[in-house]
Amino acid sequence: MLGAEYHFRDKVRVGILGATGAVGQKFVQLLADHPWFELVALAASERSVGKRYSQAVNWILNTPLPEAVGEMEVSNCTPDLPCNIVFSGLDASVAGEIEMAFAEKGYVVVSNARNYRMAQHVPLLIPEVNPDHLELLHHQTTKGKIVTNPNCSVIGLALALKPLDQHFGVEAVHVTTLQAVSGAGYPGVASLDILDNVIPFISGEEDKVETEPQKILGKLHNDRIHPAAFKISAQCNRVAVTDGHMACISVKFAHKPTPQEMIAAWESFTSEAQILNLPTAPLKPIHYFAAQNYPQPRLHRNLDNGMSIAVGRLQPCSLFDYKFVVLSHNTMRGAAGCAVLNAELLMKKGFVFW
Amino acid sequence: MLGAEYHFRDKVRVGILGATGAVGQKFVQLLADHPWFELVALAASERSVGKRYSQAVNWILNTPLPEAVGEMEVSNCTPDLPCNIVFSGLDASVAGEIEMAFAEKGYVVVSNARNYRMAQHVPLLIPEVNPDHLELLHHQTTKGKIVTNPNCSVIGLALALKPLDQHFGVEAVHVTTLQAVSGAGYPGVASLDILDNVIPFISGEEDKVETEPQKILGKLHNDRIHPAAFKISAQCNRVAVTDGHMACISVKFAHKPTPQEMIAAWESFTSEAQILNLPTAPLKPIHYFAAQNYPQPRLHRNLDNGMSIAVGRLQPCSLFDYKFVVLSHNTMRGAAGCAVLNAELLMKKGFVFW
Amino acid sequence: MLGAEYHFRDKVRVGILGATGAVGQKFVQLLADHPWFELVALAASERSVGKRYSQAVNWILNTPLPEAVGEMEVSNCTPDLPCNIVFSGLDASVAGEIEMAFAEKGYVVVSNARNYRMAQHVPLLIPEVNPDHLELLHHQTTKGKIVTNPNCSVIGLALALKPLDQHFGVEAVHVTTLQAVSGAGYPGVASLDILDNVIPFISGEEDKVETEPQKILGKLHNDRIHPAAFKISAQCNRVAVTDGHMACISVKFAHKPTPQEMIAAWESFTSEAQILNLPTAPLKPIHYFAAQNYPQPRLHRNLDNGMSIAVGRLQPCSLFDYKFVVLSHNTMRGAAGCAVLNAELLMKKGFVFW
Amino acid sequence: MLGAEYHFRDKVRVGILGATGAVGQKFVQLLADHPWFELVALAASERSVGKRYSQAVNWILNTPLPEAVGEMEVSNCTPDLPCNIVFSGLDASVAGEIEMAFAEKGYVVVSNARNYRMAQHVPLLIPEVNPDHLELLHHQTTKGKIVTNPNCSVIGLALALKPLDQHFGVEAVHVTTLQAVSGAGYPGVASLDILDNVIPFISGEEDKVETEPQKILGKLHNDRIHPAAFKISAQCNRVAVTDGHMACISVKFAHKPTPQEMIAAWESFTSEAQILNLPTAPLKPIHYFAAQNYPQPRLHRNLDNGMSIAVGRLQPCSLFDYKFVVLSHNTMRGAAGCAVLNAELLMKKGFVFW
Repeated sequence: MLGAEYHFRDKVRVGILGATGAVGQKFVQLLADHPWFELVALAASERSVGKRYSQAVNWILNTPLPEAVGEMEVSNCTPDLPCNIVFSGLDASVAGEIEMAFAEKGYVVVSNARNYRMAQHVPLLIPEVNPDHLELLHHQTTKGKIVTNPNCSVIGLALALKPLDQHFGVEAVHVTTLQAVSGAGYPGVASLDILDNVIPFISGEEDKVETEPQKILGKLHNDRIHPAAFKISAQCNRVAVTDGHMACISVKFAHKPTPQEMIAAWESFTSEAQILNLPTAPLKPIHYFAAQNYPQPRLHRNLDNGMSIAVGRLQPCSLFDYKFVVLSHNTMRGAAGCAVLNAELLMKKGFVFW
Repeated sequence: MLGAEYHFRDKVRVGILGATGAVGQKFVQLLADHPWFELVALAASERSVGKRYSQAVNWILNTPLPEAVGEMEVSNCTPDLPCNIVFSGLDASVAGEIEMAFAEKGYVVVSNARNYRMAQHVPLLIPEVNPDHLELLHHQTTKGKIVTNPNCSVIGLALALKPLDQHFGVEAVHVTTLQAVSGAGYPGVASLDILDNVIPFISGEEDKVETEPQKILGKLHNDRIHPAAFKISAQCNRVAVTDGHMACISVKFAHKPTPQEMIAAWESFTSEAQILNLPTAPLKPIHYFAAQNYPQPRLHRNLDNGMSIAVGRLQPCSLFDYKFVVLSHNTMRGAAGCAVLNAELLMKKGFVFW
Repeated sequence: MLGAEYHFRDKVRVGILGATGAVGQKFVQLLADHPWFELVALAASERSVGKRYSQAVNWILNTPLPEAVGEMEVSNCTPDLPCNIVFSGLDASVAGEIEMAFAEKGYVVVSNARNYRMAQHVPLLIPEVNPDHLELLHHQTTKGKIVTNPNCSVIGLALALKPLDQHFGVEAVHVTTLQAVSGAGYPGVASLDILDNVIPFISGEEDKVETEPQKILGKLHNDRIHPAAFKISAQCNRVAVTDGHMACISVKFAHKPTPQEMIAAWESFTSEAQILNLPTAPLKPIHYFAAQNYPQPRLHRNLDNGMSIAVGRLQPCSLFDYKFVVLSHNTMRGAAGCAVLNAELLMKKGFVFW
Repeated sequence: MLGAEYHFRDKVRVGILGATGAVGQKFVQLLADHPWFELVALAASERSVGKRYSQAVNWILNTPLPEAVGEMEVSNCTPDLPCNIVFSGLDASVAGEIEMAFAEKGYVVVSNARNYRMAQHVPLLIPEVNPDHLELLHHQTTKGKIVTNPNCSVIGLALALKPLDQHFGVEAVHVTTLQAVSGAGYPGVASLDILDNVIPFISGEEDKVETEPQKILGKLHNDRIHPAAFKISAQCNRVAVTDGHMACISVKFAHKPTPQEMIAAWESFTSEAQILNLPTAPLKPIHYFAAQNYPQPRLHRNLDNGMSIAVGRLQPCSLFDYKFVVLSHNTMRGAAGCAVLNAELLMKKGFVFW
């Protein structure tokens, strides 16, 4: 879908929509030195356009802003950027219109926004979980394509459920989350709301956690996904953690496994993303920890550069079959990292030409 | 059961076992100026005996150590204290033996320790929930008596369930807790373990949450409690909050109410503790908040001086009937405050003479 | 300066400008049940006007919003409120114009905003420190009057310095602050900026700390204050504390006292505010603590309902004479509480008629 | 001083004393994959001896415990370890005796403990600051040698002062620290003491900050260091930060520079450690940041893998000449990282044979 003129470049040129925001910065961090992608465009809102990126951004990451990126000029979010992939860290309030404009002009849009996640022909993609859903792209009628990644809480959940569903059939999921403040972007949560406190509410989050996993774990039939049949009930909380979403999960199965079988399913889980050796893919997507007080955000959020999830505390549940705890890095595995991995899969699958 | 010599005193003389610990300090705070009780004895471990309390204690509460109490000398935890009630904030490792020694010598032991909570003839008492369980005391064969209060996470849970069980019949309870560090005593949780972190494990806690409520909500038959029949599944987490345990709860009922009926059951809930006008009883034990982001530890832990619980976020649950969030002050409602209220009920019920 | 019609009322009617903000809420908390003042008007920005206060405000305090206040309708910040004193919690960006409009119409404006603090005829008032500065009001030419309280970091500093300056002559002050997030209002500091972090910068703060104390401790000559001659050097930091500003202070004196003399100066310090028995005045404005790890925000910010300051860690300083640590509640002693106390002094001094 | 049998090994064999503690773990992290050193011995207290390291340690670092190290057996802290260098993370209560025993048996002891820091013939070494002090080793009379690194707060301070002293002559230093909890080891600071709090006291810390820098910046004459003549006054605070000590510093100079000259002195600073290309040496030891709200612990503690310090907020000081803020990683640059760098310098300087 992209022109011949890119065929012989060493790297594929990419841009970032919403480059100054929290997710946008994470994209900058991941793309500044990517083996396949060359970051050539940074687009943001009116206020930043024309400024050098280093002046437009309030850099909040704990690795230095790459100098060369800091020198780049910020562009408008209009579909005339000199690249073929755009990564979207746009706010949902504007992402719908802008992403569609890029898709119509022929760009591959790899989005972290929620706007098109549940659209019929848009893959809600986690490379380790549902790479076959990329087939939906053939049914998108725009010149370009849109691929989305799930909500930051959903990715860890779906990844932990995938091998279980595959082997034992998931029938019901009860989940309570303890989510990091970085999930709310920047400035996001006010410090007075979270110091010495918990907020038992994240707008729209429970709905996403209760609906996105069924699409992700659903089955592709022709031009649509038949959602998985199990029900999810979710309660979402914000806690005083910078990065790392934790989820306390109870699951009922069609075929109840032993604990050992569950652990084996997680530990042995691998996927096409690993086989294809995608640059951002973790060596081992799921780590099970036997220590009784693991996983923990501070200790495990950076496993495999934040792309693996940590699972622990597997126990029998008196109401469902089992309960356990999942920890994933919400801005890496749960947002920008997943999006970059999605783009890498798109490349390998031939949806973007080199 | 206590001698005639106390009959005409203005106040009943009380002592504290484990007076220098975190719970012991809370007892000091509550008893230093109590309308019915006169604090006359502070007992602690060998290391503190003979010292002035102000020198023995590392005072961690945010109200000043009452001066007169600071001047008192710390005694041994031996049953020769000049009082008739002892409040026990002892560690479980020593509470069993010491509390029994006091009970055998004729003291009324009001304990926060876990040792005798599940003993057949020991009431696991929350005055608003199961005051009738005090009848068990008639079956204790010691000269004195032992009354216990439940685990700090259980009290808020049992209190929130009581009116629901009464009106609609609780059939299953799923609970995930987010617990404050003060629940672990002092020094308790290491700061490196909780800053920017969550610990998804509290030793022994899930077991207590899954078993104590059934005794509390159980029915008295002769000399024993028939535990309530519903099952509880619990996952317990420690979060970076000083005071205030939060619980995300899902419940299934025998007779499914409307949300309005549930809220009415909570809001209208009152008990003998309120009717008897016990000094430490909250005016209104349960407050329901309609604001979508309530309850919160920082905002609601001090309701009615920390003796009321806050409930909020009532929603339908796709797996059970309803889900909601409960917040209670763990060292007040959930520990020392409940124990003092227990003692007040004992007084009014004639188990201790004035 | 206010009309005869108020002479015989039981309470003086007061209003709050900026009533929905963080300082405004603190004013509501303090005035809802004040013995001398009757809260009759809540004014805020356009967005809130016409709404009930309970709907306009995002209540962030840990005591419940008083119900009767919640029912009041929010007015415009125009000088037609049915009261004679207005407490201003307005943002500096609008406070200048609005406060002047109220002063010109005859209102007594008791302001927490910085706009008029350094104006020649405006008292920068701490009742315990410079009550004589109220004489400046006679030189204000508006029909009403404006009184200001100092910056939240300055009040604790000035209060701690007052008895020292009086007895020993302050010659130089070096101060490093560790300030709570509530000092930045709401939403104020982003949680990502302060969790597991310190921000060594608070816009405009160092300048205020380096200049306001000299006016406060200055001498009144006719219609102006001759500022105190000593120099202050300040570095201001934001830390992960909800309430309570701490300051590490080194001081050089004209007449070097002994440590005992310094402690005696603090401990014996009292003022006209105490003598007049003003309702909001602390019994003892300054508490010195000998414990080597005191004062601490969590333990001491609520001394005397947050109106006293805590001092500790007095030590010799090898570069100045002494160093010590001061802790004050920034939104109480350092803002709304000081303003209310200022208004009480105005009443007693006859600047507002009953 | 070490035997011929090590001459032809690829790597030098090293051990860790106090291997299970917080500093010991950091040593494990740094030495598990070191280009020059081979970690062959882990020694700890009685309680751990004979266990596998993975079972003896409560691993608190956020990188995984290296598997091979986890399999190693823990030894006693007796001088019969099969290595020639021992890194000591021992507690001061036992370090004195044990380190001396190893030195006497011929080991090179690279210590983070405070016991021998101020001893006449022991270098208090920061490779970038005072590599010439290694000459003191020739005056140690033990068969082996002892080298120490300074206190964790002192290292960042001394590093920031070094180029200033060199160029402009430091005459007085006033410093207020805001220190991370990891500086207190594990379990260290209780969470109840630091959540929503600041502790203005760290036992023994102010004394170290006021005395160690003069030795470090002192001049070597024959067998002793003549301490630098300037005075330091320090106030030390503990704040709710996991890693990263911040210091607010005011300095008076013999020859007052311009701000530009100071920044140039920091930014251009390099040392023998960089010239020798020591594996753990940062490329650039000191980074100056112009952003008005930098440096910050969360953003800058990991500069150059935590071995560089960040400086910012340079301003004139009305009492001294200038003030500024320094941030250093306290367990990396300020402890284990500095010790490993010290050992690397010892190697290159011929004090340990390959």
